Amino acid sequence: MSARTYEVVELIRRKRDGGRLDGAEIEWLVDAYVADLVPDYQMAAFLMAVFFEGLDRAELGRLTAAMVASGERLDLEGLARPTVDKHSTGGVGDKVSLVLVPLLASVGACVPQLSGRGLGHTGGTLDKLEAIPGFRSDLAPSAVRSILERVGCVICAAGPGLAPADRKLYALRDVTGTVESTPLIASSIMSKKLAEGTAALVLDVKVGSGAFMPDLGRARELGETMVAIGAEHGLRMAALLTRMDEPIGRAVGNAVEVDEAVATLSGEGPDDLVELTVALGAEMANVAGLEVAASADPPGGLRAALSDGRALSVFREMVRAQTGDPDAPLPVARHHQVVPARASGFVRALDARRVGVAAWRLGAGRGKKEDPVSPSAGVVCLRKPGEPVESGDPVLELRADEPALLRPAVGLLEGAVEIGPDPPARRPLVLEVIRP
Amino acid sequence: MSARTYEVVELIRRKRDGGRLDGAEIEWLVDAYVADLVPDYQMAAFLMAVFFEGLDRAELGRLTAAMVASGERLDLEGLARPTVDKHSTGGVGDKVSLVLVPLLASVGACVPQLSGRGLGHTGGTLDKLEAIPGFRSDLAPSAVRSILERVGCVICAAGPGLAPADRKLYALRDVTGTVESTPLIASSIMSKKLAEGTAALVLDVKVGSGAFMPDLGRARELGETMVAIGAEHGLRMAALLTRMDEPIGRAVGNAVEVDEAVATLSGEGPDDLVELTVALGAEMANVAGLEVAASADPPGGLRAALSDGRALSVFREMVRAQTGDPDAPLPVARHHQVVPARASGFVRALDARRVGVAAWRLGAGRGKKEDPVSPSAGVVCLRKPGEPVESGDPVLELRADEPALLRPAVGLLEGAVEIGPDPPARRPLVLEVIRP
Repeated sequence: MSARTYEVVELIRRKRDGGRLDGAEIEWLVDAYVADLVPDYQMAAFLMAVFFEGLDRAELGRLTAAMVASGERLDLEGLARPTVDKHSTGGVGDKVSLVLVPLLASVGACVPQLSGRGLGHTGGTLDKLEAIPGFRSDLAPSAVRSILERVGCVICAAGPGLAPADRKLYALRDVTGTVESTPLIASSIMSKKLAEGTAALVLDVKVGSGAFMPDLGRARELGETMVAIGAEHGLRMAALLTRMDEPIGRAVGNAVEVDEAVATLSGEGPDDLVELTVALGAEMANVAGLEVAASADPPGGLRAALSDGRALSVFREMVRAQTGDPDAPLPVARHHQVVPARASGFVRALDARRVGVAAWRLGAGRGKKEDPVSPSAGVVCLRKPGEPVESGDPVLELRADEPALLRPAVGLLEGAVEIGPDPPARRPLVLEVIRP
Repeated sequence: MSARTYEVVELIRRKRDGGRLDGAEIEWLVDAYVADLVPDYQMAAFLMAVFFEGLDRAELGRLTAAMVASGERLDLEGLARPTVDKHSTGGVGDKVSLVLVPLLASVGACVPQLSGRGLGHTGGTLDKLEAIPGFRSDLAPSAVRSILERVGCVICAAGPGLAPADRKLYALRDVTGTVESTPLIASSIMSKKLAEGTAALVLDVKVGSGAFMPDLGRARELGETMVAIGAEHGLRMAALLTRMDEPIGRAVGNAVEVDEAVATLSGEGPDDLVELTVALGAEMANVAGLEVAASADPPGGLRAALSDGRALSVFREMVRAQTGDPDAPLPVARHHQVVPARASGFVRALDARRVGVAAWRLGAGRGKKEDPVSPSAGVVCLRKPGEPVESGDPVLELRADEPALLRPAVGLLEGAVEIGPDPPARRPLVLEVIRP
């Protein structure tokens, strides 16, 4: 920690009044907070001032660096394959990592994905994988490295030693209404990815009703900010802005999403999930410098790895390496209820946020960090936008362990399905690509 | 406390996003904070959101009422004389209360002044009075009432039972950079004055370099806000916006200000101090419905009470009632240093803030609530704006108990004295009067 100390209230006031902190001040603030020398109430006031006044590029770079420096970094030096990872800002039905991570490993990358659990209406990759009997996501750093060497990929939780400043700051932001701040989101994500030690990173920044950022402008700002931070720290970076108005694929929950991911790894995935996965995968191959990226048709090369079983085989190996049983039956919810179509025609829209909130309240997500999740609860979208439907046909299927949860979830889905005489126009999933 | 509870983070986010809280939510938040059910870090984030997004009139009224309701109110019912008090937002050399409180009592009012200690560059009335040997400002409510009945006035500390929510909130604001917020300042001041139980109140809202609010617009907003809150709660109110560019009178410190106050109570006060005191006093007499206010020349009536010894006699009685010895010699600083004029001509300006900061650093003020103050340290302004001066003449006299404090204080006064060939234009001290 820096030798000199600062008056925290002066730093808070300066930020509050639109001023900036220099690098030494930011480093000291982060270090002193982690060391419990700065109390939560002062940090909370500082974070709210940042919410209103932002951080400039230099402040952001130092904040991220200080968060990385607060802990250890995974040592991925000397691995035979190029490391690359992907991070999504969170969507509904977003099981992309379950497919993408083994897919990239199957074409020559090493993918060290440290992932998170769900909070609120977007699910968490670890919650989904933990629906697989025996699967463990808490691995020691040495186990992470050995699985990467053996299998080429891993999806696990970030250990407590990685970016502890981010862990402490995030917990505080969560209870002080300071989560929704572009610089704080950007530095939080990037500190974890930098500590993870990957050499290349592709971001999936979601835009739309089901996303954290409903607005394209703010999503672009977030993407650009993260790409800049990463590039400054030597990561090879790209960010895709992708549409999150409807759930990805048909399944929203935990076991139901694993099912759909396995189908996709077997070459039988829904179009939107496959499209998004290969778009992100091609970008990852590109920043990682993989051969598939240099081929005539990189997405085609990735699709081949999905249809010929190579990606599935890596997935099964990874599950086994993480003590899971890829052949064990997945848990199934005891209680089901369908939501029927109110008209005939075409599904024009299916509101991702409402579906995500319904799945969450059915038990697939948690309200507080400490809450358990149900592996089997969720929502299956029997009809997706563009598909024809007759009045009375089941459109959504709700699943829960507790029958009492079904009726309120149906209420939350009020207005989530829009039906009209014509199918909606097809829109691309990838809206923009941001490169350094 | 209200039967239902609220999600604090939802209230923080709503305020952060420019929304408003209803009365039940504000009451619950204040009560739950005082009861330690809402942690400091959430309140700190809420206060910072209020700093940026403000509070509307209804929110402010409920916040103030909840702060009053968090404790007891002084019972001033049944006193023979009309109660009236004055509050100043804090100035440099502001010993007005020491003169004004006994002055109003000497013309028929009952003045129950609960006052504060200094923090930062503006002094505190209690710190000044405690320079008098034996003077005590911590009185039980029963003692307050009995002194009011016997003497007609008292200047003492607010007991811990009065507006405890304000006490707790202020302590938090002080360390989280959320002091400088008009609605928070207004509700803090008004909650204390409402708990004090006075029926009428005149505010002295300072404007200028030495004031908390350098800007007339913001000072006016604060005055209007407090007058509105008070009127809503049944107080007879007025606010004067007064100029605070130069110290009031010549003395800045504790004992040195008591000396000057006693001189003023003996009819020998400096013009500006007398002018401000009688302007505030006439307004107090007016809102209290005193006879002097109805006379042909209310300020004249108050000047008479200063020059004929009536006010001084009440002051001495009050000091004795608070166990002080009005005849004991005041403490004198051991070390002096003068700042000489750098040119000949007229003093054109004497920067109140720099003089206030210098006096503070000489020991007259405190940096932290727990720090003691020196009764004898301070600055005496030997020349004030408008007075002629020869190059090399002493302009300021610095006093301290520790000789090492003198030189840095001289440094802080760099540029505080402006000398020019002509005297400055005379400007009125009272800029505006705000009535409900």
